[in-house]
Amino acid sequence: MRILYKKVLLLSVIGLMISCNKQVSNAQTTAPEEKTPCEPVLDLSKEKLDRFGITNKEYLSSASKRALQWKYVENDWFRAFRSLKPLKGDLAYEAGVVRRDPSAMIKENGKYYVWYSKSVSVFTVEIMKHDNMYYLCYQTVKSPYNVRVKNQVGLAWSNSPNGPWTKSAEPILSPADNGVWKGTEQNRFLVEKKGDFDSHKVHDPCILPFKGKFYLYYKGEQMGEEILFGGRQIRHGVAIADNPKGPYVKSKYNPISNSGHEICVWPTQGGIASLITTDGPERNTIQWAADGINFEIRAAVQTHTTPPHAIGLNRTIEVPDDNPTKVFDWGLSHIYNNSDEQSIMRFSSYIKTSHVAKGAPDKKKK
Amino acid sequence: MRILYKKVLLLSVIGLMISCNKQVSNAQTTAPEEKTPCEPVLDLSKEKLDRFGITNKEYLSSASKRALQWKYVENDWFRAFRSLKPLKGDLAYEAGVVRRDPSAMIKENGKYYVWYSKSVSVFTVEIMKHDNMYYLCYQTVKSPYNVRVKNQVGLAWSNSPNGPWTKSAEPILSPADNGVWKGTEQNRFLVEKKGDFDSHKVHDPCILPFKGKFYLYYKGEQMGEEILFGGRQIRHGVAIADNPKGPYVKSKYNPISNSGHEICVWPTQGGIASLITTDGPERNTIQWAADGINFEIRAAVQTHTTPPHAIGLNRTIEVPDDNPTKVFDWGLSHIYNNSDEQSIMRFSSYIKTSHVAKGAPDKKKK
Repeated sequence: MRILYKKVLLLSVIGLMISCNKQVSNAQTTAPEEKTPCEPVLDLSKEKLDRFGITNKEYLSSASKRALQWKYVENDWFRAFRSLKPLKGDLAYEAGVVRRDPSAMIKENGKYYVWYSKSVSVFTVEIMKHDNMYYLCYQTVKSPYNVRVKNQVGLAWSNSPNGPWTKSAEPILSPADNGVWKGTEQNRFLVEKKGDFDSHKVHDPCILPFKGKFYLYYKGEQMGEEILFGGRQIRHGVAIADNPKGPYVKSKYNPISNSGHEICVWPTQGGIASLITTDGPERNTIQWAADGINFEIRAAVQTHTTPPHAIGLNRTIEVPDDNPTKVFDWGLSHIYNNSDEQSIMRFSSYIKTSHVAKGAPDKKKK
Repeated sequence: MRILYKKVLLLSVIGLMISCNKQVSNAQTTAPEEKTPCEPVLDLSKEKLDRFGITNKEYLSSASKRALQWKYVENDWFRAFRSLKPLKGDLAYEAGVVRRDPSAMIKENGKYYVWYSKSVSVFTVEIMKHDNMYYLCYQTVKSPYNVRVKNQVGLAWSNSPNGPWTKSAEPILSPADNGVWKGTEQNRFLVEKKGDFDSHKVHDPCILPFKGKFYLYYKGEQMGEEILFGGRQIRHGVAIADNPKGPYVKSKYNPISNSGHEICVWPTQGGIASLITTDGPERNTIQWAADGINFEIRAAVQTHTTPPHAIGLNRTIEVPDDNPTKVFDWGLSHIYNNSDEQSIMRFSSYIKTSHVAKGAPDKKKK
């Protein structure tokens, strides 16, 4: 595997973004989204009850009520992850060098392309190719970089993966502005009001073409972030645009996850799949949404093979409908070598087969 | 630490149990349990919405709906587990010897007592002390031991931890008998009907005195077990008795978990807490039920410190209401040394503190 890497000129983008107005955060979405009922309906079908072994549907425990809201229980989403392997070639480990947050990989002219952050500031970059144009989206941050600083998401485009890149004059995404800091101390946990899930940070942007529009998935961080359930209070959101360059309008359904960390999304089975890792009760699950918004649990990743961090998906892998997690066959991740160094590694995974015997009546898909 | 170990005479119990009738499995519970509504109600309080950063309560994503059913979001249930340490003394590793599934530990006359299985058949044993009597409950199995064999739970009691033990004439728990095998092949996945969650096996029994009764928690295995979400289809149940010797009547609310593996339960804060590990979307969570039946998620155990297997809780640890997971300060677990050997180890854990700053308005408990 030969990987041609691109240094992303993010630091030069920062100055440009300092004076940007937060033009997007309060906008109402115009995407066609239906209002949904507030009370989830339990699936009390005979098939589901037998499958879950529920003794008496008139007497459902709290755990059974939660289980009866799982919409998908078929068995074609299992994956287990293997150990990481060091990369050779252009991205091989170098002492003293930090390489982190690899973008997705694309392949052009016989070469793999990946973009990454080469800095101790974090600027996660992501690539999208659409209609022979290349789009890089990435985090930007105001100077000085202190714990209460907000960040934004910028975009650059080119007709070649080698550039040159044209930067958008304005950010394409900003944090919500409805949180209120308490006092002036540099303390991100002190707030009068927390505000939306993304009132502090909009991180890890990733744009996917979907249903004729462009879905910008991102990780939100909230002012006054709490530890919840033993993990950080991290949720994902989505903003949608008609054009790859925007304007991107946040979904009224945000947040679209209740757990997770880095964004790792890919199209499959006519919808969008998402790997949820690290934080929250639903971490280490693979989820899927037919509409790209309402995600349901499809599989739990076995914890003896915790998913790699900051996955750079391999967009060259074709993902057939009957193997929706094939996207994890191999891709990129990063690990800390010590407290100062971070290098990009290769991950791979394997299909974890069901032990249900062939011909068993409960093996058939719904 | 000196541990006095007891070889549990389980193999001699097997013959006794072979001809037992399944007298319990179809009984209806007489425990006072209220009928609950089938549709979970979402908590749309302003406090919860702000805490979760939900942008618009009229437009809730599927993930937000699941989150709004989490009943507990306070921060006093975090624990992370440390690496296991080998035991010294009586339970030190011996080549060729299998020691597994340690019971809870109790302390009598200045000595710790633990019971365990010393066999490649699995007979998980658990200890309860109540009113100066000692009760051992354990799995029993019919001979021949093939993949379709069902098992039962037996009980023995003594007025001393050193015995002698009196065995109950009948089992105290049996699998449900409403599953139907398909064909006669020795294949536990081939079924006409799966039946209740515990139609095949009742494993890992653990009795706790609770609210003047005796709650027998156990792990159910279902005939025609499936892989669901990438893990085994394992759920927990409870059977309740007025007397420690039974009769134990299964709760109509069974199953009481939708995930998990070995039973690990302890009394705290006036209810029962349960560590849910290994299988299902809610694995690696700590849950709690005021009534011992309706368990809600209280914390997610960080996955870089996966909980030890087959925990033998340390019942000598006093668990204060403001530190409900102190029970994990230290206890026993087991690990495989190789494919044939299994030894008992000591685990420990530490409190994972919240990073929420002192004085932050969102730090206060609900």
